[in-house]
Amino acid sequence: MTVHAYGAHAGDQPLQPMAITRRAVGPEDVQINIAFCGVCHSDLHQVRAEWSGTVFPCVPGHEIVGRVSAVGEKVSAFKVGDLAGVGCIVDSCRTCEECGSGLENYCDNMIGTYNSPTPDAPGHTLGGYSEQIVVNQRYVLRVGHREDQLAAVAPLLCAGITTWSPLKHWQAGPGKKVGVVGIGGLGHMGLKLAHALGAHVVAFTTSESKRQDALALGADEVVVSKNAEAMAAHRKSFDFILNTVAAPHNLDAFLALLKRDGAMTLVGAPSTPHPSPNVFSLIMKRRNLAGSLIGGIPETQEMLDFCAKHDIVADIELIRADEINHAYERMLQGDVKYRFVIDNASLKSQ
Amino acid sequence: MTVHAYGAHAGDQPLQPMAITRRAVGPEDVQINIAFCGVCHSDLHQVRAEWSGTVFPCVPGHEIVGRVSAVGEKVSAFKVGDLAGVGCIVDSCRTCEECGSGLENYCDNMIGTYNSPTPDAPGHTLGGYSEQIVVNQRYVLRVGHREDQLAAVAPLLCAGITTWSPLKHWQAGPGKKVGVVGIGGLGHMGLKLAHALGAHVVAFTTSESKRQDALALGADEVVVSKNAEAMAAHRKSFDFILNTVAAPHNLDAFLALLKRDGAMTLVGAPSTPHPSPNVFSLIMKRRNLAGSLIGGIPETQEMLDFCAKHDIVADIELIRADEINHAYERMLQGDVKYRFVIDNASLKSQ
Ligand SMILES: [Zn+2]
Ligand SMILES: [Zn+2]
Ligand SMILES: [Zn+2]
Ligand SMILES: [Zn+2]
Repeated sequence: MTVHAYGAHAGDQPLQPMAITRRAVGPEDVQINIAFCGVCHSDLHQVRAEWSGTVFPCVPGHEIVGRVSAVGEKVSAFKVGDLAGVGCIVDSCRTCEECGSGLENYCDNMIGTYNSPTPDAPGHTLGGYSEQIVVNQRYVLRVGHREDQLAAVAPLLCAGITTWSPLKHWQAGPGKKVGVVGIGGLGHMGLKLAHALGAHVVAFTTSESKRQDALALGADEVVVSKNAEAMAAHRKSFDFILNTVAAPHNLDAFLALLKRDGAMTLVGAPSTPHPSPNVFSLIMKRRNLAGSLIGGIPETQEMLDFCAKHDIVADIELIRADEINHAYERMLQGDVKYRFVIDNASLKSQ
Repeated sequence: MTVHAYGAHAGDQPLQPMAITRRAVGPEDVQINIAFCGVCHSDLHQVRAEWSGTVFPCVPGHEIVGRVSAVGEKVSAFKVGDLAGVGCIVDSCRTCEECGSGLENYCDNMIGTYNSPTPDAPGHTLGGYSEQIVVNQRYVLRVGHREDQLAAVAPLLCAGITTWSPLKHWQAGPGKKVGVVGIGGLGHMGLKLAHALGAHVVAFTTSESKRQDALALGADEVVVSKNAEAMAAHRKSFDFILNTVAAPHNLDAFLALLKRDGAMTLVGAPSTPHPSPNVFSLIMKRRNLAGSLIGGIPETQEMLDFCAKHDIVADIELIRADEINHAYERMLQGDVKYRFVIDNASLKSQ
């Protein structure tokens, strides 16, 4: 089936309308009419070939929500008309220890929603900046939110799970002091989720102007990280810090805020390295510097269910598909509160 | 009481004989006639004022074993004639969460065996390059080894516990694949302890010439870390890597060997930073880069008891006190298998 999409033919070209094909619905497949697709920084890096290995044409998008339009004969958990979501993963080996543990995100053969090998045309996966997608049921998520929330649900599929997974793994919750560094697409979800999980949440930002927003998003306290005195007041006090900032920055300033056995987990990867962390920052309190990559399918479902129950969605700005190139520029400048979401209905009229 | 010691009057002067005083034995004190004292890299860094804050005269030494020569009236666990040890810690606040958890090594007010503030003359602590030491019973360890093993027990008090504590914390044991990077004072103990704990142990060295020694020390496998092919064969397979190398080196090469949720823990701090680790090394498998600082008093006792039971001691080269300056030079060149230990009887004749 041929559907409208938006993508690029080369790393140095803007995204533009294109036609792509989707495979026929197999026995275990779910076909989704995409209603909305969030715009992730990864989309920009991949489509502009800033990361190695981009294959063209490239159709980004891995924050996908919509309605089921067809299901294969072996699909029982979804029926036509259901709300459904697809995140960053559309397949994996299904047999390794990671897949067996519901951590498909760490499978060595994880198939990303775009730019990964597939037998389908054109030989690599094409993402959510498109009218439709066909995905094996194992990788499709149920969406329990109200339909009027659907656009704002989309970013949960990447920004939501990318922050949820480490918050849960490092046990953010009641009695824990949790920091969230950076208040952008990822960070604003981190604040909402850490707050809803019951932790005492401190937002770190370089900009005093974000204080009120951070408090509204769920922070109990806000620290401007350039203020050395404000930082010092929190020394050795955090159980966990979720660091969402991809720009190179001084990690020691945040490591010093961890208590013994505390961990700071990076979910953004800088294009040039951070200044090397001081080993003493790690040694002195047996601290951990860790990383985390999106999340597995079961925990993505858990996060979506939690968010539906707690009425949590992303803060978004809805755009038409033909506004995507401009949106990328604004995203690079941090000029979005906090996630662009494409209204995929706009693809039809392109 | 005045006793013979060996120390330095300034960072740029060699160590030389000196007389120091030890406090009278208080009600909770244990006085130890020091038989042997191991020589740790920290001794060299501190006495040469390569670390900030060295106060002179400086008498290093925190791998202390000997016989109890007097005890205070409130001391019940030690009696005159007992074998006893003192490690890196001679006091702490005794009231904080760390002290309450037996992790005095992470107490903000930990008092080191040398170069820490004390009411005793001359106002800072003086270490084990001396005939005698007086230490509160809370910080004195029982030594269950045979007397003829005593010199080789000394390094357990720093090198032993510094490797034991992270091996236990990160659960090295049966069914676990554990790497030990560097085969020096710390690393050779790491190999012995990880082996005795039942882990599958892989030694990493830059030098093919250390292969047989590493196997003899307890390694099941030896990898020359400069051999990219040998390294690649171990990708994503380690539960835990204990990294004892203080010289700046490429951490990513070892992080890549960790399986999901694996940790690499640094116990050496370089004088100039390691190349900044690649954030992707951490993110891709939710890996941890951590640090660890010596160990607490209860776990030091646990380690000593374990070593006595399993007949584990350090591999040492015994020296006279007046050989210490030369020993430092050899230590800097890695020319020792694997720890110098001072025969403190040599202090009397100085
Ligand atoms: Zn994303
Ligand atoms: Zn797998
Ligand atoms: Zn030491
Ligand atoms: Zn304390």
